[in-house]
Amino acid sequence: MPELRKDPITSRWVIIATERGKRPHDFKKSEEQIVQVGICQLCPGNEHMTPDEIAVYREPGTAPNTQGWWTRVVPNKFPALSTEGDLNRSGVGMYDMMNGVGAHEVIIESPEHDKPISHLSEKQVEEILWIYRDRFMALQRDPRLKYILIFKNHGRAAGASLEHPHSQLIATPVVPKRIMEELEGSRDYYHFKERCVFCDIVKQETSTKDRIVMENASFIAFETYAARFPFETWILPKKHDSSFHNIDKTQIMDLAKIMKGILLKIYGALSDPPFNYVLHTSPIKNDCANFYHWHIEIIPRLTAVAGFEWGTGMYINPTVPEQAAVSLREVDIEAARS
Amino acid sequence: MPELRKDPITSRWVIIATERGKRPHDFKKSEEQIVQVGICQLCPGNEHMTPDEIAVYREPGTAPNTQGWWTRVVPNKFPALSTEGDLNRSGVGMYDMMNGVGAHEVIIESPEHDKPISHLSEKQVEEILWIYRDRFMALQRDPRLKYILIFKNHGRAAGASLEHPHSQLIATPVVPKRIMEELEGSRDYYHFKERCVFCDIVKQETSTKDRIVMENASFIAFETYAARFPFETWILPKKHDSSFHNIDKTQIMDLAKIMKGILLKIYGALSDPPFNYVLHTSPIKNDCANFYHWHIEIIPRLTAVAGFEWGTGMYINPTVPEQAAVSLREVDIEAARS
Repeated sequence: MPELRKDPITSRWVIIATERGKRPHDFKKSEEQIVQVGICQLCPGNEHMTPDEIAVYREPGTAPNTQGWWTRVVPNKFPALSTEGDLNRSGVGMYDMMNGVGAHEVIIESPEHDKPISHLSEKQVEEILWIYRDRFMALQRDPRLKYILIFKNHGRAAGASLEHPHSQLIATPVVPKRIMEELEGSRDYYHFKERCVFCDIVKQETSTKDRIVMENASFIAFETYAARFPFETWILPKKHDSSFHNIDKTQIMDLAKIMKGILLKIYGALSDPPFNYVLHTSPIKNDCANFYHWHIEIIPRLTAVAGFEWGTGMYINPTVPEQAAVSLREVDIEAARS
Repeated sequence: MPELRKDPITSRWVIIATERGKRPHDFKKSEEQIVQVGICQLCPGNEHMTPDEIAVYREPGTAPNTQGWWTRVVPNKFPALSTEGDLNRSGVGMYDMMNGVGAHEVIIESPEHDKPISHLSEKQVEEILWIYRDRFMALQRDPRLKYILIFKNHGRAAGASLEHPHSQLIATPVVPKRIMEELEGSRDYYHFKERCVFCDIVKQETSTKDRIVMENASFIAFETYAARFPFETWILPKKHDSSFHNIDKTQIMDLAKIMKGILLKIYGALSDPPFNYVLHTSPIKNDCANFYHWHIEIIPRLTAVAGFEWGTGMYINPTVPEQAAVSLREVDIEAARS
């Protein structure tokens, strides 16, 4: 009998195919790889091919937009939203629109073209997390912006168009629908229980351990109970905080460790699958400090989103989360690296 | 300047890239085709390869599960939900679950393996629509069910695994999230305006005509104002009704005509792209008769859903809906057929 599971935050129901669960080797690797044509505009030496850097960690004494950096942020060449202009909210007949004001940045994760986060040093992953935080701090001063989203697309099926490892930041002039849903769901839970739903999840998961894949002093990485996708993995900070930018140095070190570890396990178990990860944090004007809890959602892209999902907002997950957790726990990190 | 547009039903914001709009020829056809291996289990003569038919239109005198049918409905061999059993709602620690009770059926659209809906006769498309309606009428008597979804996946990138043209029906024991959002949005609009938002859309679109692609006595087919995807096309009945199953004979004939026409235009403009369509109708227990309005959403699958979309529930659409409408209007239906 398949199982319907409800996500406790958004009340989204998911169909889990418990009987004929798909294991890692059931997912055939997509043939479509990104073929890098010509030189890579994100590689060292090609800094002139990108717009000027807006944040960077580089060797002392090296000039901006030259070699010598180890993490570098540049505006997206083809931005989804424009940094210039006013919102000008207006009506078009019965419809509503506003100008596409916001920010769209590319975070070049390291100078190494061939090394995904899972294969970088912990130190380098920390640097990526620090520069994420820098961009949050800088952009939240812009009064036109309501939300800052940091995410990563890896592999063509996950929407990446460049091979060189990079993350993206998009800042929007509205609080997006998905975030509103999380805020409403976690606010309702808080009103009912007077506890943060995410803190309760941390407690539940660390006590049963069925779905936990990795854990350290500051974070758990686990297969979420109502996972929409096979091997959907969430990373939750153990300490309650609604906003990623409040992260401290110890937490950055622990987050780098667990991110690298979990991405290496996914890389190993599923043969470098396409994936997305998304950093979920509070809106800029934060009135959800008590009940919201920042976290990271990692989604390997192994199944097609089809008519059923578009029509219902429900998902059919052919892999049981508890079995996915077993598979990922079994991956030897050292073996996966090679 | 990109444009943010708001869907008037769900209040979902969409980013429309107005400056560098993608035209039909900018979408490269995906290389991944469905390769049918061995014999087709949905073809005439192979009726023994499917579960027994549960609805069928066939030549008088022919036996069930033999040749002689022109539309045939069978249970899905690997159902996402099971027709047997009780819901048994229960708690698992802090989480909620229920048994995956429901229905999952395959609607074989015609005996012809190579003919998509766009290439069938109008008469045959009518038969498909009638059998959709039959299944609604039959399943809504099951008290365990709350919602019936009919949808189609065409092409591998749209989630299809069989080549033979077919639609699917999934009946769920909960009202899905996406439907709840539509109901809430259209209820709010009704409370505010005392009018149906979809009826207002019909009026707006037929008066401006910017986004209309086809129109007949009963339906309009148009590029929706806040389209999430390039060439996202909606078909709306002009007459207000919340439920598809109230459709009458004249409307079936007009719907067959416009469905076939619009799918042929999409086929021609985008070289037989992968697509989904979804029939949106009221839940079984219908208390939304005044404010909800059934319709069909057609989504060509030309762009990847990536981290931004997963993180925000917002979409970036690289094609301006008004330009998509021009492109589709220009397609000569007779030329597209060959």
